Amino acid sequence: MKLGNPYGTHRVIEPKGALPQPAKKINNDMNIYSNEILLNVKTLNVDSASFTQIKNACDNDEKKIENMILNIVNERGKLQNPVTGSGGMLIGEVLEIGDDFPDKDLCVGDKIATLVSLSLTPLKIDRILKINKDTDQVDIIGKAILFESGLYAKIPEDISEKLSLAVLDVAGAPAQVNKLVKDGQNVCIIGGGGKSGVLCAYQAKKNAKNGKVIVVEYSKENAERLKKLDIVDEVVVADATKPVDIYEKICDITKNELCDVVINNVNVENTEMSSILITKDEGIVYFFSMATSFTKAALGAEGVGKDINMIIGNGYTKNHADLSLNILRESNKIRNLFEKLYI
Amino acid sequence: MKLGNPYGTHRVIEPKGALPQPAKKINNDMNIYSNEILLNVKTLNVDSASFTQIKNACDNDEKKIENMILNIVNERGKLQNPVTGSGGMLIGEVLEIGDDFPDKDLCVGDKIATLVSLSLTPLKIDRILKINKDTDQVDIIGKAILFESGLYAKIPEDISEKLSLAVLDVAGAPAQVNKLVKDGQNVCIIGGGGKSGVLCAYQAKKNAKNGKVIVVEYSKENAERLKKLDIVDEVVVADATKPVDIYEKICDITKNELCDVVINNVNVENTEMSSILITKDEGIVYFFSMATSFTKAALGAEGVGKDINMIIGNGYTKNHADLSLNILRESNKIRNLFEKLYI
Ligand SMILES: NC(=O)c1ccc[n+]([C@@H]2O[C@H](COP(=O)([O-])OP(=O)(O)OC[C@H]3O[C@@H](n4cnc5c(N)ncnc54)[C@H](OP(=O)(O)O)[C@@H]3O)[C@@H](O)[C@H]2O)c1
Ligand SMILES: NC(=O)c1ccc[n+]([C@@H]2O[C@H](COP(=O)([O-])OP(=O)(O)OC[C@H]3O[C@@H](n4cnc5c(N)ncnc54)[C@H](OP(=O)(O)O)[C@@H]3O)[C@@H](O)[C@H]2O)c1
Repeated sequence: MKLGNPYGTHRVIEPKGALPQPAKKINNDMNIYSNEILLNVKTLNVDSASFTQIKNACDNDEKKIENMILNIVNERGKLQNPVTGSGGMLIGEVLEIGDDFPDKDLCVGDKIATLVSLSLTPLKIDRILKINKDTDQVDIIGKAILFESGLYAKIPEDISEKLSLAVLDVAGAPAQVNKLVKDGQNVCIIGGGGKSGVLCAYQAKKNAKNGKVIVVEYSKENAERLKKLDIVDEVVVADATKPVDIYEKICDITKNELCDVVINNVNVENTEMSSILITKDEGIVYFFSMATSFTKAALGAEGVGKDINMIIGNGYTKNHADLSLNILRESNKIRNLFEKLYI
Repeated sequence: MKLGNPYGTHRVIEPKGALPQPAKKINNDMNIYSNEILLNVKTLNVDSASFTQIKNACDNDEKKIENMILNIVNERGKLQNPVTGSGGMLIGEVLEIGDDFPDKDLCVGDKIATLVSLSLTPLKIDRILKINKDTDQVDIIGKAILFESGLYAKIPEDISEKLSLAVLDVAGAPAQVNKLVKDGQNVCIIGGGGKSGVLCAYQAKKNAKNGKVIVVEYSKENAERLKKLDIVDEVVVADATKPVDIYEKICDITKNELCDVVINNVNVENTEMSSILITKDEGIVYFFSMATSFTKAALGAEGVGKDINMIIGNGYTKNHADLSLNILRESNKIRNLFEKLYI
């Protein structure tokens, strides 16, 4: 068995010298290198921005969605949406562990969730068993490879596989909120009625304590179910692609103070300006949404003369898997809701 | 005279409710609202990422470049490159000031540089006089509008117009470096031989003092002229689109410590992974380059398990115009070089 590069560059076919994530095509041959592991994949959790794009492109037709997913994987060797660039993650069982794989606690048969994006994970799909359009999850028969540097989490005993998968998909978001939000602050979660949004809202309120946590959410249903969780101070039903409207609403609620921290968790384009306008001078916008445009954010802030810090949502930060799973353990209401939505 | 929205939304034609920067088309009628000012434009400084794209699309042919610029402005009412989304800035003379424009010190006849992007500035070009492919500057006969929230700087007495324009175009970059870099740190400037790169390198060394400032630069010429300025500790000639090569070189120079702060100032795509790989755990990457892809950065960092902070380069921060012009006043060597390159 040959030793591969820790970051998986040995599997990049095109362009040469690139890393697997930005690469156009990677090698999904399922014979492992000595520092890789082989997984029997059970379920893919497609990234929300990607799945929304796929559903739209396929007129929500299940057969077309299936073909589109298979075509992407055949062409690229990985499930990377060519439009959004994003992937998702997976759960599966460990089939084989290379001798040089560093984590010696991992055993064949362990159930794990990958914490690196499908947009860089070598994947082979034999068959698609079921597409769940509501949970963004796709059950398959297939295999995948994890590189030496690839992050993963063992599926916990006390939380079901599908629920773990759903939460771990967005684990970076609440963990970053934990690093950013301080007591007494005004915080706004845009798209706070969605999966990552609810987790962020919970964590934001925990950290902001006496501060104010506001959620902007598009649909009445998501807003209602969020209100029932009793975790935030205000829920605004509004369209985040309409910055002037959002700005006026947040001015009202905060008495023109605006927000110290804004977290963007939507799955649609063109919400950068809303996020920027409602942020205080020297405040922070954390863009977790994969539909964020770099130039729209950079030039948008300059265009309105806002001296704010804009952060690119890194899906990884230390301890993110535990922190997000613990939210389910702490909040029965969130756990019950997520069990209804994602299992 | 009617009062316009401070952010210029009254001029957005499509899509409704958007702000001028993300808008597809804005109204470039040159009758001002009462909180706008009208400018007689002399020179456009096209954003480097945009100009590179335009030059490539036009096979570097001057007539084609001219037509492409005119077509963009005719179609959009502003000089926003449809591929990169970016613009640039301009210098001109104040022709008319609306009664409700807030800055009462500004006078008709003043020479100013706009500090908001051309990607949101209503512009009308009567004629293109000269395209300077080396400086990214385009002399025109034409007019532009600045909104109430639009930032600008008066052209200083002691620095020529063209040189001011060149430096103010990238003023955000060294000012952000000033906020991020601390004494003793390892700092790497990727694309540090270019315009914003040189200013960032100077500011980084000023702040890092006993730390180490490393520049990665593509061309030998730019590397040589940078070395002659004597402002940095190491200059590496390498291609930042090749992350593995860059990583190995920076490991060597820093004895595997890597960098506390990485500033990305290139004008080409696919340099996110190089920036990420050479950053220390919990370090900072500041992406000033307009060719940055949000998803490549977000998923790339997760993909290699890097717990780092990635910042979107906001073109504005307080006092950025003065800070960057002062670099020319402090360093004769940089001033002489920039006078050769940009006048
Ligand atoms: N940075 C990373 O590493 C990373 C990792 C995973 C996911 N993500 C990204 O994070 C984002 C959220 O993921 P998720 O799983 O939490 O998605 P989700 O559950 O689909 O949540 C998205 C939420 O945004 C709301 N929304 C949509 N359009 C809106 C609008 N115009 N105004 C206000 N709210 C709006 C949705 O409301 P409706 O349902 O009513 O439309 C929904 O509640 C996605 O973009 C995803 O790609 C990033
Ligand atoms: N965030 C903002 O508000 C804002 C405002 C203005 C500008 N910008 C952006 O900032 C960036 C830099 O602008 P600038 O005016 O400083 O541009 P510039 O003078 O053209 O500098 C770019 C530098 O990057 C180098 N480079 C190109 N490809 C490289 C590679 N593969 N590896 C290493 N170095 C490479 C270039 O070297 P060669 O010349 O040898 O190719 C050049 O020295 C652009 O992307 C621009 O769009 C951002």
